[in-house]
Amino acid sequence: MGLKSFIEIHPDSHFPIQNLPFGVFKPEPASDPRPGVAIGDTSWTSRRSLRPVCLTVRSSRAPIASFSLISTSSWVWDALHGRKLVQQFKSCSTEPALRDNASLRQKALVPIDKVEMLVPIAIGDYTDFFSSMHHAKNCGTIFRGPENPIPANWFHLPIAYHGRASSIVISGTDIVRPRGQGHPAGNSPPYFGPSRKLDFELEMAAVVGPGNELGKPIDVNEAADHIFGVVLMNDWSGTTVSPWIVTLDALEPFVCDAPKQNPPPLPYLAEKISKNYDISLEVRIKPAGEEHGHVVTKSNFKHLYWTLTQQLAHHTINGCNLRPGDLLGTGTISGPEPESYGCLLELTWNGQNQLSLGGTNRKFLEDGDEVIFTGCSKGNDYNVGFGTCSGKILPSPL
Amino acid sequence: MGLKSFIEIHPDSHFPIQNLPFGVFKPEPASDPRPGVAIGDTSWTSRRSLRPVCLTVRSSRAPIASFSLISTSSWVWDALHGRKLVQQFKSCSTEPALRDNASLRQKALVPIDKVEMLVPIAIGDYTDFFSSMHHAKNCGTIFRGPENPIPANWFHLPIAYHGRASSIVISGTDIVRPRGQGHPAGNSPPYFGPSRKLDFELEMAAVVGPGNELGKPIDVNEAADHIFGVVLMNDWSGTTVSPWIVTLDALEPFVCDAPKQNPPPLPYLAEKISKNYDISLEVRIKPAGEEHGHVVTKSNFKHLYWTLTQQLAHHTINGCNLRPGDLLGTGTISGPEPESYGCLLELTWNGQNQLSLGGTNRKFLEDGDEVIFTGCSKGNDYNVGFGTCSGKILPSPL
Repeated sequence: MGLKSFIEIHPDSHFPIQNLPFGVFKPEPASDPRPGVAIGDTSWTSRRSLRPVCLTVRSSRAPIASFSLISTSSWVWDALHGRKLVQQFKSCSTEPALRDNASLRQKALVPIDKVEMLVPIAIGDYTDFFSSMHHAKNCGTIFRGPENPIPANWFHLPIAYHGRASSIVISGTDIVRPRGQGHPAGNSPPYFGPSRKLDFELEMAAVVGPGNELGKPIDVNEAADHIFGVVLMNDWSGTTVSPWIVTLDALEPFVCDAPKQNPPPLPYLAEKISKNYDISLEVRIKPAGEEHGHVVTKSNFKHLYWTLTQQLAHHTINGCNLRPGDLLGTGTISGPEPESYGCLLELTWNGQNQLSLGGTNRKFLEDGDEVIFTGCSKGNDYNVGFGTCSGKILPSPL
Repeated sequence: MGLKSFIEIHPDSHFPIQNLPFGVFKPEPASDPRPGVAIGDTSWTSRRSLRPVCLTVRSSRAPIASFSLISTSSWVWDALHGRKLVQQFKSCSTEPALRDNASLRQKALVPIDKVEMLVPIAIGDYTDFFSSMHHAKNCGTIFRGPENPIPANWFHLPIAYHGRASSIVISGTDIVRPRGQGHPAGNSPPYFGPSRKLDFELEMAAVVGPGNELGKPIDVNEAADHIFGVVLMNDWSGTTVSPWIVTLDALEPFVCDAPKQNPPPLPYLAEKISKNYDISLEVRIKPAGEEHGHVVTKSNFKHLYWTLTQQLAHHTINGCNLRPGDLLGTGTISGPEPESYGCLLELTWNGQNQLSLGGTNRKFLEDGDEVIFTGCSKGNDYNVGFGTCSGKILPSPL
């Protein structure tokens, strides 16, 4: 707290010196991808290009997290290298070598709005959980009715489905409305055409750091050591992620208790300390031609019933191996109040209600709509934020 | 037909000069992975190590298949390079440079049983279809009863689920019995422990060659140009694949008509020519301590209702992108007769019947059982085979 840097940082910035999230960017369109750390409105780069390395990394959370950083995650090494340097001037508030050398500063500090951000990890596998009880309850009520909207097993384990890694894109990428088959009316052939109910889903995702071997599960009380950090995620058609991975270290001041779980989880899911994080989440929809967009929901990461560490431990209990860079989505994060629901399915109750966007209404997303997520943990004198995770809907090709 | 090589090939060999499948192996435990082509009982290697390349490849099927071979599929280039050379002596029956140079032959030809085979591709995403009507019908009957065992939409599109890429292993890898939660009895907590009904699933899988961009589907009539080849696959805990990718070229002499589809598929799934392949498949179970194992089923690839090309086209119709090395499993391949069912669930009707293995019986797999798949297309004077796809069950760690 109270840490200052010679880099000017606005009090509302998502990226003060207490955050230092990791990303990968291209300074120029023809540049090689480069790892960087966000500070204020600039990205600090170690100027190393991506290449395979293998080394032992000392983690600030675990005693020693020894893992091979394979080529798919080589940027991590560079980023950690950068982080170590940045922490030098984090501890002494100023770094003369950089502060007093204007030429070096210009090379090392690149304005974020001038660079192209990339998906910061090679994602081997992507799993999406279903960890918000409010979301599970609303979906169950909509699709199966109000009696027993949540199946009994939902309370025994964090349910997940396996998602597609190839179609994960970086914030700012346009999303083409998908097309496919729909339920036929009576005996006619199935509907074929653009999706009629295109939605967003407000999620966050954990990025796996050190993985595990096939057949060797990770203990739930050691699971945090296998999480490199967290991003915002929109689980729609073409999964969109925010570019800056915020570490659990940076989120530690915003830890809060996870909800009490009843029935108690089986021993392999019972944590000594069960943590959530107080991260305010907000979704705006910006129809084509409008400038700012309208806030349609305000939720919070702390509403999750199953914790990130329970998700990770459950994922490996059957022997499944995780690899560095794997992505574990939380599922849609809905809060208890209607204005905190995490998707249009819930907000409009499957299109039964209209959602007002000022001069216009929505049941589901329309072509040209831009959806913008933001996430931020707000402290007394600084924020730890995630920036934005956005995408605009383009019409289906047919 | 009638092609001969100076390499002696047994008439029953899976790898005559008409096959030339691609694989990746280590000649010695400390060697770098190396691409190779199987001939007879040896593997012919180009002696290049794996490294990223980018070039245009002329395909023998398509006019020109131009695609970037990224690092994940760099071995393909090497293998194709090897294939081109091998085809030189395929066309002239002998290759003097190799035939007459014993030292070169010894270097270039490595006995298959002396090398360690590796998963031959970096699998970005793995999707498993459900394309055998007999399998769908049997599963539906077992779990939902004999009335309408197959849901109506099954006949409108090739259903699939998304599988995990990290746990795909090469033939010969031991498989640890998974553990997890099971349905509780009454009000007691859920069962936790080793899987009680561990099964194999007899499948094959297509390896994607050139991919497609997000939002740009592949036409069903061009889908074959995006399939590099086919492997055997066991979809159990830790998906096992056979090491040699057999090209569609090599399978072309074994093409047969795909089943007539009724109702007719929607236009995006309607093929000008709908091909299956006549590939005999066989599964043996070898209990611990036995030498040979017992054949438990004989099926055939030609029983698939949805073709590989329909699977691939359907996969991309919503805009999903495929990447080189992606794996598309067929789903369990069951034939119409009880002795051609592709998994123990069907063969023992969910454990209601015992399957005889000579001196012992099985309802599901037991620890120590080795399961061995073979696949082979049998011509008049030669075979095009897949070798074997095997794995042995180890007990759960708990």
